[in-house]
Amino acid sequence: MAKVIELNKSITDSNDRDAQKLREELKQKGVFLINLMSSPGSGKTTLLSSTIEDLKDKVNIAVLEADIDSDVDAVKIEKLGAKSVQVHTDGMCHMDAGMTKRGLEGMDLTGIKLAFLENVGNLICPAEFDTGAHKNVMILSVPEGDDKPLKYPLMFSMSDVLLITKTDAKPYFDFDIEACKERVLRLNPKIKIFPVSAETKEGMDAWEAWLLENLF
Amino acid sequence: MAKVIELNKSITDSNDRDAQKLREELKQKGVFLINLMSSPGSGKTTLLSSTIEDLKDKVNIAVLEADIDSDVDAVKIEKLGAKSVQVHTDGMCHMDAGMTKRGLEGMDLTGIKLAFLENVGNLICPAEFDTGAHKNVMILSVPEGDDKPLKYPLMFSMSDVLLITKTDAKPYFDFDIEACKERVLRLNPKIKIFPVSAETKEGMDAWEAWLLENLF
Repeated sequence: MAKVIELNKSITDSNDRDAQKLREELKQKGVFLINLMSSPGSGKTTLLSSTIEDLKDKVNIAVLEADIDSDVDAVKIEKLGAKSVQVHTDGMCHMDAGMTKRGLEGMDLTGIKLAFLENVGNLICPAEFDTGAHKNVMILSVPEGDDKPLKYPLMFSMSDVLLITKTDAKPYFDFDIEACKERVLRLNPKIKIFPVSAETKEGMDAWEAWLLENLF
Repeated sequence: MAKVIELNKSITDSNDRDAQKLREELKQKGVFLINLMSSPGSGKTTLLSSTIEDLKDKVNIAVLEADIDSDVDAVKIEKLGAKSVQVHTDGMCHMDAGMTKRGLEGMDLTGIKLAFLENVGNLICPAEFDTGAHKNVMILSVPEGDDKPLKYPLMFSMSDVLLITKTDAKPYFDFDIEACKERVLRLNPKIKIFPVSAETKEGMDAWEAWLLENLF
């Protein structure tokens, strides 16, 4: 047992009312909004691209890309034919409900049934701020390791869905999917877990069926 | 070119004086402190473990492990025979100078020449807070992708050293080391870049020589 020192902080949560309001407004418009979170490089954009390819003939999709800088992700998404807006957070490490609302106001949502907010790549701060999304979805990729639920419990606790991605890379990494599932379910017994590979498309059907079932 | 919306924030930087003071105090004690940063799962602890194994007969090493929860990292480091203290940040996404000082006060630094702060796994927030370390070292692992300097420029701009890790996984990922180096050097022409594999030990000698050269 290592020596452990606890440090304290205070959290403000003035954001919650704005989030609730945005959630209701979007529902009235028939737009189902997903907040997609993960650490940098876990493959959010690749997963989204693959999902859009598979579903674009069934449902109109829009994507709000949040990044500190660059527009590489929005450009990729636009090429697939989905609507996309890039939001720059000016160094901020997460999106909140006000930022999400302003981003969504930057595009015409007429006819859109499914919208994704691709949150800033960060396994910590985005979990603390309600964005106004209807469901929170997080990604953990195989190369990141199966110990992440132990180290970043909050995001695993507040997510509705966990996508374990890059499962095609499993032969090269020491990642125990069953042990990871157990750790996550101990934190959050209601979470749905889909192991997927955007590369080989393995498991993508179950994730996409979940999306279609949840539309308004 | 995608549509881009700029959002603003205000930053406070009352931390800078504390950091400068801690840096001077540690120098007087002969303790060279490295702030080690990366996203979650990029292999900070594995890199540190490998470095400790190689250098522990040459220099006394201490490690301050910062995490939101768990003590898995501190336990691993202690087994290697280095001094280690685990700091819990109570959900906070970064370490600042005051937290670093309190963590270091939790261990006896007598005889220690080299100390590492293993910062919280996060590619964003830690770059904004001076911890009081003498050098900032960041890790980018091959599975995360070579586009990260475009998306998280601040950390690449403020680091003295970039370790490109898990180079042994290069055959399985589309990571262009030369393109990545170019992107990083455009942001930060003075940064030193060491591609390394803690697994095969390739490149570790250059990184370790840099550490030994920089001791007080």
